[in-house]
Amino acid sequence: MKEFELIRRYFTEQVVKRKDVHLGIGDDCALVTPSERQHIAVTTDTLVAGVHFPLDTSPRAIGHKSIAVNLSDLAAMGAEPSWVSLAITLPEIDENWIDEFCVGVFELCEFYNVQLIGGDTTQGPLSITVTAQGQIPFEKYISRSGAKAGDWLYVTGEIGGAALALQHILGNVKVAPKYQDEIQKRLDFPKARVLAGQALREYATSAIDLSDGLVADLKHICEASGVGANIVLDDLPISEALSDTLGLEHFYDLALKGGDDYELLFSVSEDNKVGMETALANTGNKVTCIGQLNGSDKITTTLNNEPVNIKIQNYEHFTKSTFDE
Amino acid sequence: MKEFELIRRYFTEQVVKRKDVHLGIGDDCALVTPSERQHIAVTTDTLVAGVHFPLDTSPRAIGHKSIAVNLSDLAAMGAEPSWVSLAITLPEIDENWIDEFCVGVFELCEFYNVQLIGGDTTQGPLSITVTAQGQIPFEKYISRSGAKAGDWLYVTGEIGGAALALQHILGNVKVAPKYQDEIQKRLDFPKARVLAGQALREYATSAIDLSDGLVADLKHICEASGVGANIVLDDLPISEALSDTLGLEHFYDLALKGGDDYELLFSVSEDNKVGMETALANTGNKVTCIGQLNGSDKITTTLNNEPVNIKIQNYEHFTKSTFDE
Repeated sequence: MKEFELIRRYFTEQVVKRKDVHLGIGDDCALVTPSERQHIAVTTDTLVAGVHFPLDTSPRAIGHKSIAVNLSDLAAMGAEPSWVSLAITLPEIDENWIDEFCVGVFELCEFYNVQLIGGDTTQGPLSITVTAQGQIPFEKYISRSGAKAGDWLYVTGEIGGAALALQHILGNVKVAPKYQDEIQKRLDFPKARVLAGQALREYATSAIDLSDGLVADLKHICEASGVGANIVLDDLPISEALSDTLGLEHFYDLALKGGDDYELLFSVSEDNKVGMETALANTGNKVTCIGQLNGSDKITTTLNNEPVNIKIQNYEHFTKSTFDE
Repeated sequence: MKEFELIRRYFTEQVVKRKDVHLGIGDDCALVTPSERQHIAVTTDTLVAGVHFPLDTSPRAIGHKSIAVNLSDLAAMGAEPSWVSLAITLPEIDENWIDEFCVGVFELCEFYNVQLIGGDTTQGPLSITVTAQGQIPFEKYISRSGAKAGDWLYVTGEIGGAALALQHILGNVKVAPKYQDEIQKRLDFPKARVLAGQALREYATSAIDLSDGLVADLKHICEASGVGANIVLDDLPISEALSDTLGLEHFYDLALKGGDDYELLFSVSEDNKVGMETALANTGNKVTCIGQLNGSDKITTTLNNEPVNIKIQNYEHFTKSTFDE
């Protein structure tokens, strides 16, 4: 099959047709026409087979995840997602694989009314790069740098499930059968907290999505905002699968350092706590206060009101590939 | 070295600081603020090592080319380039390599006042995906679909040099030493016809950039516009290196089918010929009329006013990788 046929066949037939897409797939460029008085938020994430997902991950999950991790970045800015560009490098043409991959891509795009506007298909080792774009009214975005000492630290949903799934796959941890489906789904089909992010525009002083792990991502907020933080371990919304599987010190370790949760971590001033909690409840998102920011330059943790010393060694690319060795 | 340090060190220090970039590298997303009443043109191209460039290509050339091929797509729409996102997958961290790669990226960005606003760095087989964005006043873009029978067909610059360089590298053709530098440069450091593209907004009825070969790309215009075309071989602006190296039938073959020239192919109505030629001369771009569009559904060629039958078999990904076998 020729490249052009491949593009036409799989990627030009889609349900979403946004009014702000003036020209979609099929020319040298796509043309979009943003609403007036909006910032365009732009983010790019690459998933490499064997590094960002195990080689035997289902194509539908790969499709879903390649979009979700980008929508998650848009959510963390408070953007409304609008358009995605998809560059996919495939070792060979396997029509069933591409079919399933497209299911994963398009079901998420349809849910959020996001249109695929272009991309590239090339031959080589399996890898997917998505650039996602969204819109935010002028000055209404949430950066990493607006947090203040005294602000409260919150997280959406639950954490640690994706990291547990990964350890289970790697054979480091044995998870009870009743939790296996749930945590696998957490790893393979992360939710992007899109509506939560938009609701937070009015309330949050900073936000980031949890991709590298709670402490690693909190560190980005702390560095960008010039604050420190204390995390109250007792209050962490830890996945039941995780707290039921591992002992105390190990599950906190995984909850703090494990990545891939794609929940939102954000800060809110004292005055905005109640308003934010009501607004987030209206979007159907659970939120939990997990600590407070302070004037130090450190991230500390407490358990039962006592300081706990936890060594932080988070996942980073280039230090070690997770799967491919 | 950690990923975050890598990003900071190489990609955040840049000369270009555009006013319409509200937030650059360093948060979950970049934020840009387009001018009012503009379309945003978006394009994505991936270069895979061993497929889109030989494995021993200089990192500076790879950096240059990864930006140039995307700016070329913007040029073909008539867009003014504004922002690029760069996703790079590297097998290992080689600081000299990255340094040189960045020289290639940033010298082109600076020349066109394009700002790098984000991206991703991952570990894996060498591959680069760039998403480039530009701005075009409402309705002033040039699509592939506006050509009419009777319009004249033009091309910028010269063609065939890049394809000759590739054949030389592959050992299929022996090029005289005096031409080797010139054609290697054509292949490694393609020019994106950015100013020509913007000048053509007022004149061209259709445009495309030459990446897959003259006939293959002309076919896209013909299909999108519902026209046929005749190419006058005698008038092709063939690189002297090519016409001096190969015999008649072979050099036409390479000029028609060889890719990677990144010149603009476009159509202009009879009424706009003179205006266009003047405007393009003012941008410093040579243009050549190479034929005319017609009401057929075929692409034909003539030489000395006689029809010539040339079998067209152009380069496509997935039919055969050019370098890696």
